[in-house]
Amino acid sequence: MTQPFYPTVPEHIPYASAGSDEALAFKAYDPEILIRGKRMEEWLRISVAYWHSFAANGSDMFGAGTFDRPWTQQSADPMQAAREKMGAAFEFIEKLGVPFYCFHDVDVAPTGSSYREFKSNLDALADDALGYQERTGIRLLWGTANLFTHPRFQAGAATNPDPEVFAFAAAQVKNMLEVTRRLGGANYVLWGGREGYDSLLNTDLRREGAQLARFLQLVVDEKHRIGFNGTLLIEPKPMEPTKHQYDHDAAVVHGFLARHGLEHEYKLNIEANHATLAGHSFHHEIAYAAANDLLGSVDANRGDPQNGWDTDQFPNSVEDLVLPLYEIVQTGGLGNGGFNFDAKLRRQSIDRNDLFHAHIGGIDTLARALTVAAKLADDGTIARMTEQRYSGWEGDLGRAITDGTATLAGLADRVEKGEINPDPVSGQQELYENVVNDTLWG
Amino acid sequence: MTQPFYPTVPEHIPYASAGSDEALAFKAYDPEILIRGKRMEEWLRISVAYWHSFAANGSDMFGAGTFDRPWTQQSADPMQAAREKMGAAFEFIEKLGVPFYCFHDVDVAPTGSSYREFKSNLDALADDALGYQERTGIRLLWGTANLFTHPRFQAGAATNPDPEVFAFAAAQVKNMLEVTRRLGGANYVLWGGREGYDSLLNTDLRREGAQLARFLQLVVDEKHRIGFNGTLLIEPKPMEPTKHQYDHDAAVVHGFLARHGLEHEYKLNIEANHATLAGHSFHHEIAYAAANDLLGSVDANRGDPQNGWDTDQFPNSVEDLVLPLYEIVQTGGLGNGGFNFDAKLRRQSIDRNDLFHAHIGGIDTLARALTVAAKLADDGTIARMTEQRYSGWEGDLGRAITDGTATLAGLADRVEKGEINPDPVSGQQELYENVVNDTLWG
Amino acid sequence: MTQPFYPTVPEHIPYASAGSDEALAFKAYDPEILIRGKRMEEWLRISVAYWHSFAANGSDMFGAGTFDRPWTQQSADPMQAAREKMGAAFEFIEKLGVPFYCFHDVDVAPTGSSYREFKSNLDALADDALGYQERTGIRLLWGTANLFTHPRFQAGAATNPDPEVFAFAAAQVKNMLEVTRRLGGANYVLWGGREGYDSLLNTDLRREGAQLARFLQLVVDEKHRIGFNGTLLIEPKPMEPTKHQYDHDAAVVHGFLARHGLEHEYKLNIEANHATLAGHSFHHEIAYAAANDLLGSVDANRGDPQNGWDTDQFPNSVEDLVLPLYEIVQTGGLGNGGFNFDAKLRRQSIDRNDLFHAHIGGIDTLARALTVAAKLADDGTIARMTEQRYSGWEGDLGRAITDGTATLAGLADRVEKGEINPDPVSGQQELYENVVNDTLWG
Amino acid sequence: MTQPFYPTVPEHIPYASAGSDEALAFKAYDPEILIRGKRMEEWLRISVAYWHSFAANGSDMFGAGTFDRPWTQQSADPMQAAREKMGAAFEFIEKLGVPFYCFHDVDVAPTGSSYREFKSNLDALADDALGYQERTGIRLLWGTANLFTHPRFQAGAATNPDPEVFAFAAAQVKNMLEVTRRLGGANYVLWGGREGYDSLLNTDLRREGAQLARFLQLVVDEKHRIGFNGTLLIEPKPMEPTKHQYDHDAAVVHGFLARHGLEHEYKLNIEANHATLAGHSFHHEIAYAAANDLLGSVDANRGDPQNGWDTDQFPNSVEDLVLPLYEIVQTGGLGNGGFNFDAKLRRQSIDRNDLFHAHIGGIDTLARALTVAAKLADDGTIARMTEQRYSGWEGDLGRAITDGTATLAGLADRVEKGEINPDPVSGQQELYENVVNDTLWG
Repeated sequence: MTQPFYPTVPEHIPYASAGSDEALAFKAYDPEILIRGKRMEEWLRISVAYWHSFAANGSDMFGAGTFDRPWTQQSADPMQAAREKMGAAFEFIEKLGVPFYCFHDVDVAPTGSSYREFKSNLDALADDALGYQERTGIRLLWGTANLFTHPRFQAGAATNPDPEVFAFAAAQVKNMLEVTRRLGGANYVLWGGREGYDSLLNTDLRREGAQLARFLQLVVDEKHRIGFNGTLLIEPKPMEPTKHQYDHDAAVVHGFLARHGLEHEYKLNIEANHATLAGHSFHHEIAYAAANDLLGSVDANRGDPQNGWDTDQFPNSVEDLVLPLYEIVQTGGLGNGGFNFDAKLRRQSIDRNDLFHAHIGGIDTLARALTVAAKLADDGTIARMTEQRYSGWEGDLGRAITDGTATLAGLADRVEKGEINPDPVSGQQELYENVVNDTLWG
Repeated sequence: MTQPFYPTVPEHIPYASAGSDEALAFKAYDPEILIRGKRMEEWLRISVAYWHSFAANGSDMFGAGTFDRPWTQQSADPMQAAREKMGAAFEFIEKLGVPFYCFHDVDVAPTGSSYREFKSNLDALADDALGYQERTGIRLLWGTANLFTHPRFQAGAATNPDPEVFAFAAAQVKNMLEVTRRLGGANYVLWGGREGYDSLLNTDLRREGAQLARFLQLVVDEKHRIGFNGTLLIEPKPMEPTKHQYDHDAAVVHGFLARHGLEHEYKLNIEANHATLAGHSFHHEIAYAAANDLLGSVDANRGDPQNGWDTDQFPNSVEDLVLPLYEIVQTGGLGNGGFNFDAKLRRQSIDRNDLFHAHIGGIDTLARALTVAAKLADDGTIARMTEQRYSGWEGDLGRAITDGTATLAGLADRVEKGEINPDPVSGQQELYENVVNDTLWG
Repeated sequence: MTQPFYPTVPEHIPYASAGSDEALAFKAYDPEILIRGKRMEEWLRISVAYWHSFAANGSDMFGAGTFDRPWTQQSADPMQAAREKMGAAFEFIEKLGVPFYCFHDVDVAPTGSSYREFKSNLDALADDALGYQERTGIRLLWGTANLFTHPRFQAGAATNPDPEVFAFAAAQVKNMLEVTRRLGGANYVLWGGREGYDSLLNTDLRREGAQLARFLQLVVDEKHRIGFNGTLLIEPKPMEPTKHQYDHDAAVVHGFLARHGLEHEYKLNIEANHATLAGHSFHHEIAYAAANDLLGSVDANRGDPQNGWDTDQFPNSVEDLVLPLYEIVQTGGLGNGGFNFDAKLRRQSIDRNDLFHAHIGGIDTLARALTVAAKLADDGTIARMTEQRYSGWEGDLGRAITDGTATLAGLADRVEKGEINPDPVSGQQELYENVVNDTLWG
Repeated sequence: MTQPFYPTVPEHIPYASAGSDEALAFKAYDPEILIRGKRMEEWLRISVAYWHSFAANGSDMFGAGTFDRPWTQQSADPMQAAREKMGAAFEFIEKLGVPFYCFHDVDVAPTGSSYREFKSNLDALADDALGYQERTGIRLLWGTANLFTHPRFQAGAATNPDPEVFAFAAAQVKNMLEVTRRLGGANYVLWGGREGYDSLLNTDLRREGAQLARFLQLVVDEKHRIGFNGTLLIEPKPMEPTKHQYDHDAAVVHGFLARHGLEHEYKLNIEANHATLAGHSFHHEIAYAAANDLLGSVDANRGDPQNGWDTDQFPNSVEDLVLPLYEIVQTGGLGNGGFNFDAKLRRQSIDRNDLFHAHIGGIDTLARALTVAAKLADDGTIARMTEQRYSGWEGDLGRAITDGTATLAGLADRVEKGEINPDPVSGQQELYENVVNDTLWG
């Protein structure tokens, strides 16, 4: 029997009442509570990210690693280190008491000295993971292949100027799709970390666009071939590490998919910090995805409004999350998707238990936001006000425009005759905002 | 015979040699010089914007108007004021010696007390404009309808919650499309200034998206009905005045058009300052449009990298324009389009002749950039280096991927066997940049 | 007896309990409630801004005015219009039930055709204001002179290249300082709206810095000469309308004051939206001011994190305000200062009552944040954790460094000998954040 | 005799004429050419940065190292690896033919297992460096201590909550100051990489400010004690790696120094990319420093206007550098300072010779900008226009204000009497810009 990696943490982080000052307890997240007829756990489908929480060492661009994660040190026996990491990971997730985790191929498996060795390592560790899943009930929210860390991907994977790199990426995705299927993963994610450019000068945009479309089609074909039932997800990000990433934001990915006949094969994995880096609010990206039937899953985190890079902090703003959650509640939930914490400890947070504090804070934030969002939906005021605002479109004129019977000339004729001369109507933004805040704080 | 408005400016701004210190002369723009077999004037197709240069008064959000443009004062006879404005405008454009101008309906015509009166004013002033065009040879690069200044458009035009506003906008566009046709306009532009939202809370994204698509389709129908031969252009902008504008950037508009079957009916009018507000370089937006056959026309200006709003300054950076011009040269030019100065004098630039200095500086900047861009194209080094960089895609593996014979599993098999194991290759970004700079400064 | 301008609003906006759905009622702001021994009204000292709420008409850079404020129309009798405006303003403030207002000279007085006429108008309207103050008990939080709207200030006031403009600005400040004294104003504010530059090319930074220092000294001299007992405040802003404003942020103003011997004569008026435009959080600016004894007053508003200009929205985020309020609570309050709503209705909010909704929302937000801040201060956990974090500085080594007995060489000697070899300690950021959130939501 | 690390590069990168297409040659940088009586080499005082060019391996936050620098691999003999690195460094600098280099203590010396071992390593390698300096004539522009990479500095060095970390930092600076003196360094730089905060919640701003001031004073004392004749420099940066860095920008550092009586002991090392991260132009920071006698040295690089982190690219924009260089030319040059390339190769630039291409491009860019700046200074038009713009300040009114005889009341009296009523004058920004561009491109 191995030693626990988090010895001072109880077997299971409990739900305590809101007034509790026990740090290692949830104050708002009660998995069993029913919200609009569904358990909170099922609404949120919380997932822990393997990479930030177990594979990273706390380094940043100006500093060395700080975290107490022994397996991140250079090791004589990488497989043994990988197994220690997996043990700590499942201990953590089980103690935290959340249902899901996510990983990249390289998060769990040493890359070895050849692709074949890497594949063999991954197969072995996937077996271990399956064992942990069976023993703990923890499930895989999504798997993904890391196509950006290794130098071979420095100029992109699918969009690399070298077709051999495309092929290498294809191999990794093919394999990881199979691993994800084997582990019962609910989704498979593609994040195009270096599918973009550092300089337009040496880049052929037309060609790289075609390569990316081809790759996405091949993944769809393979998914159907092997009978993977999960959802394929694309995760937009506008930049970083590249100067510009092609999967810039939800609307751009939507258009790209539509132009290549793939809009029914992929949904979106929306990340809060990626939204803000793209110059959008997280709410915008969720609302766009929801309005266009593209809402797949969420990478829950936050950026720093004063810093222009991906800070990947744990969410701690209920206010920022209430309206995104309201959109999700209105659509009935995330389906196959969930809330994965693509979030990392601050580099200074070097106590082992800091990882628990961070996740507890993040999960309670989501739980609070969900609770308020459900109240907003139950109350219905916002929805009624909005419906009223657009009610003219249910009238004769609105319908004639919508159904295509009106023409520009016909409409112009009515305006010229003075039949149509609209007065502006208050948008009532502040009143809407008060309704939200009174619900939030009421 | 009326008094000239710019009495101290000669009949025609001359082209002087580069060493000249005559302020009212071009140092680089020589309309007649041949560049890759085409006159510089035809490459650039320079246009003066009526709104910034004649309709605006120099006010900003914190200050009153400063410009010496008498017709912008409250007037007892708005039509007379409009005619003085038009006289000054054509005097300016003719003295500047450029071939084109652009305007919104409200730039030239007083809005009067009813739509009918506005239409009548516009008809009369369009007659005047036609007279000026015939006398001077100046042509209309594009016309457009202002669907954002009047309070009725406060919540958008096509995407307004009130269908009567949609109808009013339809009337204006119908009419201005006809005016543009009558004046021989080469293009018609739609800028969705308030097609977006100030708050998601009171906004129905799905509905507004459908409204916008409907409007764009009606404009296409009307264009074909009246036999307008010009190009329809959409001008992307991400925000301002709205928090978020739907026509965010080139890629978003492209996707939207494609999703609604309109990608062959519209091209893009790319503005430099809108590109940078969207978090892109101007080069990126031009390159995206060129790579996707969407390049229509250009609103030439620049933003301030330290200010987060549309400063609409005259372009004065040759370096910023060389690579966008290189993309344009590589595609053979802008066709129907041109370079319109959507740029305004700084509020402190209150001498009448400042408008000439600003345009001369902007035009010389374009001329210098075009000259360097043509040298880059003639030299061919950049193109050759890029072609070489992607040459693997012309080999067997590349073709198999491109033509669809390769599958994910097939590629994976070759990687597993060790047949494919790519090494990274230098992207040579600094060397590419040196090639550009050595051409620019050589 | 004149007609009320807000006829459907009751005499006094009541405090209703949190669950109320009466829109025209406070849900959190109860002026009488005691917080750490002081009435909520006295903690917050809420003020209504004359300019945004009464002088503005809802125009933006792309659109005409939308608001129903008849006195903003061109008028044959500007003094009559000014009196209607003042009547509506005091009706509004009295019904809202807050203790303060603020204004610029030009907000209340027509500028007339000469400075003498403007001064005479201002004197007359100040008499009216005094009458209103006496009848209603409303007080003046601060006065200020508008040195940025008129074209004469296009290149700055104190920092203008023309010393006559400096003199004109001096006259306005001299007069408005006197009016503020006469009205019992608690503070006098200087916002250097155009004290900066649009282009470095035509700017002499050294000279303009000296001019600004001279102006600030003259204001101090005049204040003491007339016996004005209020506080002089400088309001930092980094840009807009200028490209760069000298009073960039709290730290820059602090340094400037110190370099000119003025750091005990001025405090700061911190605006949330100016903080974020400067690349700081509002919390940062408040904390900086508090840590350096410069905290004077607050312009309460918010910007839009996705828009790069001064959106001046009403505050509606309790989370954003809790920590700034906590700093203020820790220092015992704002003293002479208060919370002035330098915030404007959205351009679409055209119902008269929208102004009430906006202020009610903003005030409730401040009240909620104050309540939580006081709980954080009462609880003391954050303060204790921080004190513990720095406790080493109370030991021998810390004191030797602080009191100046340690030298670089002496410290180096101890490190070389191995006596000092510090281990990193967790910064516990996530735990701190959880403490705040558990208090906020507990 | 060791093998050269750059075998395909000639002994000395030659100066070729502008039309040359030899990639490994300067096209503009001719060290011997006289500019305003001083050799170009002496104007620019080019320096190579040890860290980016030799100590880094090309990793970024999303990817592993890519560069062919064998000594960055884990090594059994770190001192041997350090010596290989130093050999390659001096080979590079000598072949490049520039006069200076810069380094941090940890760039050249392995940190070993104790401070004592580190110090001993540094002493030995400094001896080696001295040998190289003597053999090659290469000099040290500045030295500095790395107080941000090691985990002990995770919460800052001088501003750490733990005084032992302050002491450790003191030891490193004390030692590196001595090494710099021994190597004849012209300057010593302090960059406060983590002197700031990640969260205000756990930070005591007042205390940390006092700590920083104390540290800066101790460095001054030590400098004088050991008789180091170089200049002490502070390098501002606003953020990254921290959320907020105290040495935010030139104006903030200036104020901080002045408040602690240190403004004559330190000058500034201005970095272009840090300027833009702070929301300023590089020109602004240089102009501010020049106007306040704080101009020390320059870290030459550039950021990416669309990316919000320190991209540290090699400068390649002449336009961006002309006006900063013009400020420097107007002040007679950088004195002790120089242009250090705090710039790194793009991660994809993995050929050994890419480091030459990058430096050649950067140096030619500086040379071109210097040449134009000198032409602007020789021509004198900009200076004359600006002098004229402020000429009113040389008149009676201007002098009365400047010399302190005018009072607010006295000035107001003259305005009230109508003696002073200024008209606005054109700021002529576009004309100024044309003068610059016509010089640049003439």
